Amino acid sequence: MTGIVLWHVTTSLDGFITGPDDDMSWSAGYGGTSLAEETIASIGAGLSGRRGYDVAKAHGIDRPYGGDWDGRIFVLTHRPPTEPDPYFTFLTGDLADAVETARVAAGDRNVVLFGADLARQCLQAGLVDEILVHVVPILLGDGVRFYDVPGGAQIRLERTHLGGSGQITDLRFRPETTPVRPG
Amino acid sequence: MTGIVLWHVTTSLDGFITGPDDDMSWSAGYGGTSLAEETIASIGAGLSGRRGYDVAKAHGIDRPYGGDWDGRIFVLTHRPPTEPDPYFTFLTGDLADAVETARVAAGDRNVVLFGADLARQCLQAGLVDEILVHVVPILLGDGVRFYDVPGGAQIRLERTHLGGSGQITDLRFRPETTPVRPG
Repeated sequence: MTGIVLWHVTTSLDGFITGPDDDMSWSAGYGGTSLAEETIASIGAGLSGRRGYDVAKAHGIDRPYGGDWDGRIFVLTHRPPTEPDPYFTFLTGDLADAVETARVAAGDRNVVLFGADLARQCLQAGLVDEILVHVVPILLGDGVRFYDVPGGAQIRLERTHLGGSGQITDLRFRPETTPVRPG
Repeated sequence: MTGIVLWHVTTSLDGFITGPDDDMSWSAGYGGTSLAEETIASIGAGLSGRRGYDVAKAHGIDRPYGGDWDGRIFVLTHRPPTEPDPYFTFLTGDLADAVETARVAAGDRNVVLFGADLARQCLQAGLVDEILVHVVPILLGDGVRFYDVPGGAQIRLERTHLGGSGQITDLRFRPETTPVRPG
């Protein structure tokens, strides 16, 4: 038995994963959901893009999920830092190889994707098994978009779960693997 | 008893109300929800911005909701067309006056807002009582955003309903009336 590749993301109602200047304070204070807790407990390894790593470092964050998870995070980058990092393992290969490396490290548990750009690339390459979205009841208006593809690249999803706790809405989806490009 | 001012919007999971080039075809084929039907039946008048009107006209659409609703739609614009339109009534005053005109026309029923730009202005001015969002399980990547404010202007919401039919997720919110501007 092997785990799945999961894009786990918290978004504003209007589709932003950060506010301007990588602000994340808007998502604080809502509490977690039981599905979030189950998901975090299911993760065997993480995979992040370079931007996600840089933003985490800029915020002084070494561990995701407020420290509730302590596994290995791989960072796919063309420019690995010259100093090794105790919390992150840098990969310089291609996307599919990076996902496979994370899958092997995760064993029978799940791989979680961090960062919109890397997750979008994985999604478009058909490498994502499920998307779990926690929708926060706020409109931000600007920031880093959940799924940003100038010109558009539709991906239809199948909603497999609808729920929530308190003010947070949990939505779980299975993506179609082949992106549909309009025009 | 008077009705409420309702922003009624269908959005992609990633926060777009149209795809590129005002494409709406992505939202077809999912069927309606019972809450959508109830909402449409509750509407006494509509209020649209000029862009929403122009897009509807460009698509040859005179009536919203596939013709399931037949009330009066007011269009707030600085440039009313020179020819009268049998389906639309043009207003050239300010935003609050336009909402009031629509409220009077709606009587004890609700006013629905069409178009992201007008609805955003009403929301920021504290003129919106509720937001009803139907989330379609698709990622678009580009198009007209649900709530677009360069630089950001957070508005916190209270989720008052969570449900859905088929693949559509219904979310209903009550907005805080005073926008919070970060920075």
